[in-house]
Amino acid sequence: MFMHDKKLQYNAKPDQPDPLMARRLQEILGGQWGEMSVMNMYLFQGWNARGNEKYKDLLLDTATEEIGHVEMIATMIAQLLEGAPLATQDKAVQSDPALAAVMGGMNPQHAIVNGLGAAPKDSNGNAWTSNYIVSSGNLLADMRMNVTAESQGRLQVARLYEMTHDKGVKDMLGFLLARDTQHQLQWIEAIKELEEKEGVVVPGQVPSSYEVSDVSHTLFNFSAGEESQKVVEDKTAKDGQKFIYTGKPEAMGQKPILKPVTKDVYNTSAMDLF
Amino acid sequence: MFMHDKKLQYNAKPDQPDPLMARRLQEILGGQWGEMSVMNMYLFQGWNARGNEKYKDLLLDTATEEIGHVEMIATMIAQLLEGAPLATQDKAVQSDPALAAVMGGMNPQHAIVNGLGAAPKDSNGNAWTSNYIVSSGNLLADMRMNVTAESQGRLQVARLYEMTHDKGVKDMLGFLLARDTQHQLQWIEAIKELEEKEGVVVPGQVPSSYEVSDVSHTLFNFSAGEESQKVVEDKTAKDGQKFIYTGKPEAMGQKPILKPVTKDVYNTSAMDLF
Amino acid sequence: MFMHDKKLQYNAKPDQPDPLMARRLQEILGGQWGEMSVMNMYLFQGWNARGNEKYKDLLLDTATEEIGHVEMIATMIAQLLEGAPLATQDKAVQSDPALAAVMGGMNPQHAIVNGLGAAPKDSNGNAWTSNYIVSSGNLLADMRMNVTAESQGRLQVARLYEMTHDKGVKDMLGFLLARDTQHQLQWIEAIKELEEKEGVVVPGQVPSSYEVSDVSHTLFNFSAGEESQKVVEDKTAKDGQKFIYTGKPEAMGQKPILKPVTKDVYNTSAMDLF
Amino acid sequence: MFMHDKKLQYNAKPDQPDPLMARRLQEILGGQWGEMSVMNMYLFQGWNARGNEKYKDLLLDTATEEIGHVEMIATMIAQLLEGAPLATQDKAVQSDPALAAVMGGMNPQHAIVNGLGAAPKDSNGNAWTSNYIVSSGNLLADMRMNVTAESQGRLQVARLYEMTHDKGVKDMLGFLLARDTQHQLQWIEAIKELEEKEGVVVPGQVPSSYEVSDVSHTLFNFSAGEESQKVVEDKTAKDGQKFIYTGKPEAMGQKPILKPVTKDVYNTSAMDLF
Amino acid sequence: MFMHDKKLQYNAKPDQPDPLMARRLQEILGGQWGEMSVMNMYLFQGWNARGNEKYKDLLLDTATEEIGHVEMIATMIAQLLEGAPLATQDKAVQSDPALAAVMGGMNPQHAIVNGLGAAPKDSNGNAWTSNYIVSSGNLLADMRMNVTAESQGRLQVARLYEMTHDKGVKDMLGFLLARDTQHQLQWIEAIKELEEKEGVVVPGQVPSSYEVSDVSHTLFNFSAGEESQKVVEDKTAKDGQKFIYTGKPEAMGQKPILKPVTKDVYNTSAMDLF
Amino acid sequence: MFMHDKKLQYNAKPDQPDPLMARRLQEILGGQWGEMSVMNMYLFQGWNARGNEKYKDLLLDTATEEIGHVEMIATMIAQLLEGAPLATQDKAVQSDPALAAVMGGMNPQHAIVNGLGAAPKDSNGNAWTSNYIVSSGNLLADMRMNVTAESQGRLQVARLYEMTHDKGVKDMLGFLLARDTQHQLQWIEAIKELEEKEGVVVPGQVPSSYEVSDVSHTLFNFSAGEESQKVVEDKTAKDGQKFIYTGKPEAMGQKPILKPVTKDVYNTSAMDLF
Repeated sequence: MFMHDKKLQYNAKPDQPDPLMARRLQEILGGQWGEMSVMNMYLFQGWNARGNEKYKDLLLDTATEEIGHVEMIATMIAQLLEGAPLATQDKAVQSDPALAAVMGGMNPQHAIVNGLGAAPKDSNGNAWTSNYIVSSGNLLADMRMNVTAESQGRLQVARLYEMTHDKGVKDMLGFLLARDTQHQLQWIEAIKELEEKEGVVVPGQVPSSYEVSDVSHTLFNFSAGEESQKVVEDKTAKDGQKFIYTGKPEAMGQKPILKPVTKDVYNTSAMDLF
Repeated sequence: MFMHDKKLQYNAKPDQPDPLMARRLQEILGGQWGEMSVMNMYLFQGWNARGNEKYKDLLLDTATEEIGHVEMIATMIAQLLEGAPLATQDKAVQSDPALAAVMGGMNPQHAIVNGLGAAPKDSNGNAWTSNYIVSSGNLLADMRMNVTAESQGRLQVARLYEMTHDKGVKDMLGFLLARDTQHQLQWIEAIKELEEKEGVVVPGQVPSSYEVSDVSHTLFNFSAGEESQKVVEDKTAKDGQKFIYTGKPEAMGQKPILKPVTKDVYNTSAMDLF
Repeated sequence: MFMHDKKLQYNAKPDQPDPLMARRLQEILGGQWGEMSVMNMYLFQGWNARGNEKYKDLLLDTATEEIGHVEMIATMIAQLLEGAPLATQDKAVQSDPALAAVMGGMNPQHAIVNGLGAAPKDSNGNAWTSNYIVSSGNLLADMRMNVTAESQGRLQVARLYEMTHDKGVKDMLGFLLARDTQHQLQWIEAIKELEEKEGVVVPGQVPSSYEVSDVSHTLFNFSAGEESQKVVEDKTAKDGQKFIYTGKPEAMGQKPILKPVTKDVYNTSAMDLF
Repeated sequence: MFMHDKKLQYNAKPDQPDPLMARRLQEILGGQWGEMSVMNMYLFQGWNARGNEKYKDLLLDTATEEIGHVEMIATMIAQLLEGAPLATQDKAVQSDPALAAVMGGMNPQHAIVNGLGAAPKDSNGNAWTSNYIVSSGNLLADMRMNVTAESQGRLQVARLYEMTHDKGVKDMLGFLLARDTQHQLQWIEAIKELEEKEGVVVPGQVPSSYEVSDVSHTLFNFSAGEESQKVVEDKTAKDGQKFIYTGKPEAMGQKPILKPVTKDVYNTSAMDLF
Repeated sequence: MFMHDKKLQYNAKPDQPDPLMARRLQEILGGQWGEMSVMNMYLFQGWNARGNEKYKDLLLDTATEEIGHVEMIATMIAQLLEGAPLATQDKAVQSDPALAAVMGGMNPQHAIVNGLGAAPKDSNGNAWTSNYIVSSGNLLADMRMNVTAESQGRLQVARLYEMTHDKGVKDMLGFLLARDTQHQLQWIEAIKELEEKEGVVVPGQVPSSYEVSDVSHTLFNFSAGEESQKVVEDKTAKDGQKFIYTGKPEAMGQKPILKPVTKDVYNTSAMDLF
Repeated sequence: MFMHDKKLQYNAKPDQPDPLMARRLQEILGGQWGEMSVMNMYLFQGWNARGNEKYKDLLLDTATEEIGHVEMIATMIAQLLEGAPLATQDKAVQSDPALAAVMGGMNPQHAIVNGLGAAPKDSNGNAWTSNYIVSSGNLLADMRMNVTAESQGRLQVARLYEMTHDKGVKDMLGFLLARDTQHQLQWIEAIKELEEKEGVVVPGQVPSSYEVSDVSHTLFNFSAGEESQKVVEDKTAKDGQKFIYTGKPEAMGQKPILKPVTKDVYNTSAMDLF
């Protein structure tokens, strides 16, 4: 069960409106790596956790914080949109390149659909989709996704920080940079502990007899040129075994031959004889 | 530029048809973490790499191999579909629970749309989408996604391995388990090296003055209960700083007040006075 | 800012596992009218509200409750999935129609992707998308969507109630039925008040001179047969004007003629002369 | 069965081309609340209606009209696109802010994909999807969606009306404003009648014993602050019962505990003991 | 402008309910190649046609007929769903394999979402999307899509015809088979005429100087093995030029080198020197 | 199994950066008719081919080439993005309309998400989806789709060729024009041969007794006006039968009546008697 505090977790107030920046900030709200993604991903991972209460709690702590981050960015966007130009044929556009850039670049749905409010979409107006997230039941696999999400997310925040001179926007982005630092580090900590318990290769419990083990530590060189060899040459993989490099990989399987199917499928008849 | 060898990289031949298993294998072909995802993701990351030739090459080596994995699984699915039952009212169904399970559980599009061939879709018939993948220009961020993809992918392969007794299917899955082991380990190796060069927190070059640094190593306890504290208590994060735990986080921002917008937006008027 | 209480808002515990019912319950979790939709919709409407604090608060009250409903249903699904059959060729299936129904009917992603946990998807495995929701900036327009969402949602809950004999599942669904009753009624109350202030037709402030007013209260009979006339015959619309019925509507516009475009667009040339 | 009259239902002819306005008009053609949505929604609701012939007829009358509205807007867009600038490096752009706004703001797919014709997409180029619509079999639930669609749609038309000075465009939008007035009013009329027959709360036939009735008329205050209380305080809901306000809601359910699943699922083992 | 006749274009009445067949028929209603696709595609192509009135008329004739085909299939599905089993734990399932097949195989949304009516979705419950269709402004390009759509559509109808023994369903499918025959043939006729006017290769008006003409009639053998040579060997292409076969294609471009970008993008630094 | 050559198939090097053109080129990379579509479509058709080795080989030859085309365009886009302007409030924009056009028109995700690299998306930022492609098992049906894809694709390339003055970009597009010429012609050649073997109407093997044959060669005039008659008048269809034209088509089916369903579905009760 959840409760809401009307105050924001941190400041979210721009110095002045900027509808182009409003559009861009949508990326970290409703984009692939935006706050809606981490909020929903951590919620589902937390709710689905079976045992492992300290991780379940960590996931729900962080998920709950992320709802508040969506709130901050949505609030920021709504303020950046105040004063957006709306009419396409306004005379002002005819002599003002900066206004022309805004007219061309702002998201038309911000005005038409959302009444100058934030949308649950990315910077190109694509709807958020749960295709962006995962909850697999395997915590190590999921913690790797989580550190990815915080890395991609912080990268986007850093880029956005460079795209504006508005101190209010930068203040909020600086807060998000810091929280993404913590979130990267806490998932890295969890990964370290889980790898010690379950092994480096996910999932750790697969019997070794299942694997075709002679290709489990081999880099095959399918792309002409040998530069990739440097990554594994003379190195021991994190699971303790040596990497192998194969410069000229051979096909191990056969040329596949599929049988014709029955006539009621109406496939093309096999015509190999004509 | 690419070339094709007609032979498969490894065996992909089932002992006998199994349309339910065909449906399930679609997950690792066209699902979120299937081979189409890693194939396309590594291709784009490789093509977009600016410098860093050994990683660019490693990405393209692996991408090229993954095209061949899509090929193997597609070939397997086409064979598992041979002999699928098609007519809903066949009398055989009325006395055979196993046939009833197949009739209810197989993917109808395998017959109607694909003529008993593989589809670029997941096990529920959802089309593959590039929303599943990323190419960010930051190799450390992307390598974390790559090790995630190989972890989630190998997890699914392991589950599928347990879902069948068909030796031919298990043989192919055993090969994929081994390749996913290598791929996890090679991306982990790259991450290690990149972290040494660029720092643990992505992106590494963000000036510390940008961050609201007093919250960059703090775990806020937004979920009642203190279990999560165990993950960070008395621990040093991978970047060398100590974690902080805050049991009762306070809101640092204000209650947001949005201004009314102009009348041509046709929003509800502010009615706070009635 | 949000806080989480580890206890659920209400009971969510089934008497026994039922993987088919787990699949069906996904509809009210991640479907078009599921709890993820109302949760996200009310959050965005609340955050975007400009003034009108009592409605903003009502939206955020209800949104916050809905996060807890997602939590309850996700928890229920995870328990219903315990004990799901996984291997397609299990001998048990060959003599047990009930097991065959489960084998055919359960969602394969529940096992392969989610490790027997809930997914942010609907009962056919479609990802949740923000295409399902709206935040328009006009509260009356949005309150009409909200009462729709609670009506469609409660309808689905009622149907699901009839689809199971499990007392634990029914207990949770009975709670949701009651909450949807309240939510329908509170949005109806808000609509009543907003209509009194802004008028029945949304948006209320459009100058009457904008409308082609002679067709603003006319039912055109475009479908052969006169049954629809009964709906408006001799009736006064809610805005106080009389309905008009036109049995044989005439086209008021012209046959459209589009001009050819320049050659650099490579459209088909107009060939009307040959 | 349907028939087509080559004349448009109403005028759809702009005074002059305006590719930015063409992009914006796509929202009411192929957006969430555009004419494609109401056309398809009313068709399916009409075709699926079981009995209730006057509503079935009303749905099909209105659906058939909406096909003609899609036709009008598509025709308008094709004309607004005539004369669109295509080459990115044209010298004219270098000194003309208005042209720069068009170059930046027009939809590139209008030229590349559609040859300066209308697309079945919204103002950001998102494909129309049937996720926008519903046909539930319950007419009261669906009529509520219908009045929502006409409200959101008319709101967008009103905003677009303010975004242009083109008299031809305004003429067509004024016609659509009027038709949306009628459509809102006719669905409101149907709702009134259906509520009288089936009750206010959808679905009306649910036995009261199903509901956890002590929470069916209670507003829970999950968001700090008491403003929402004003909406329900001392009020009787439309179904005749009094609203209740609970300022400090308590969790009624338990802290959920999920059991571990079998090893063949390869979830993380429960590690609560270390 | 459109008009509706309450009678169906042709019979759509099954002998008896069959919820599995209802699910399968969704493919030709709301699938990639279903009637919603051809209906919407022909409408947009017709509305966007600039001149060429006989083709514009042909497109709108056929589009208008297809609306009636959607109507027929929707009506059929609604009837096939009557009597669908709903409760998962019904005792009848435990002894009846045929019922188990239905329980496992029917679309749960048909009951939960649509109240036993048709949905605007495919046989796996995927929403119809305008991504399936095209209107390019070039009639020859589009007529090729149209003959494709009628070919894929008729193929699916033929497969469905084999999947049932219900005479009523077969009667309707036999009608659709015939109409798809006509539609294939009429688009082929249009293609023939357009090719005579504009040339075989689309778009016909591209100046030959634009093309790198030495590779415009060459089959490159990128896949090991020479079987494909048989398709072009000693053959003259439809545009009158001879095909060329190149057994060992060479790369004509360079190894690409991308430059590093500025630091504010936060990409990985080029590390080729370490 | 596949192999990669580091050299590009052909030149892909622009004279100078142009972020607007970069956005536009995304259409032929990741759009409906872009290279990702043909690459994936030919791969799946080739892998699913049952017998017919020369076509299987032709499909895989062409598919393998298309992977290299995706590579060329991705490489071109990455170079066109170098030097893109990022900060919204840069003073330079205030006096430079050309820069304003770029600022408004470039894809924000190119900077925020992709670090100035190519994305697997179209020119409006929509993710590539396998909904764009087909592999049906019937080669004639699929070859018709293939010639469509090459026609739509070449049309888009021709339009893009006119949109830029950059010689490097034009050189690459000129190569693609030529390859699309070959690909159109080779699929036309295959269609010719397949039609000779299997008949013109797909699928060729449907028994004539299945069809309601009296409507299999009739053009029904559902759109007022007789222009379409010219397309078929006095013509023999490609299958050798005469076309028929029916100016006033009559409904052949009945007015549909759907039965009410059981109460547990909670549909609206039939109220035809009040």
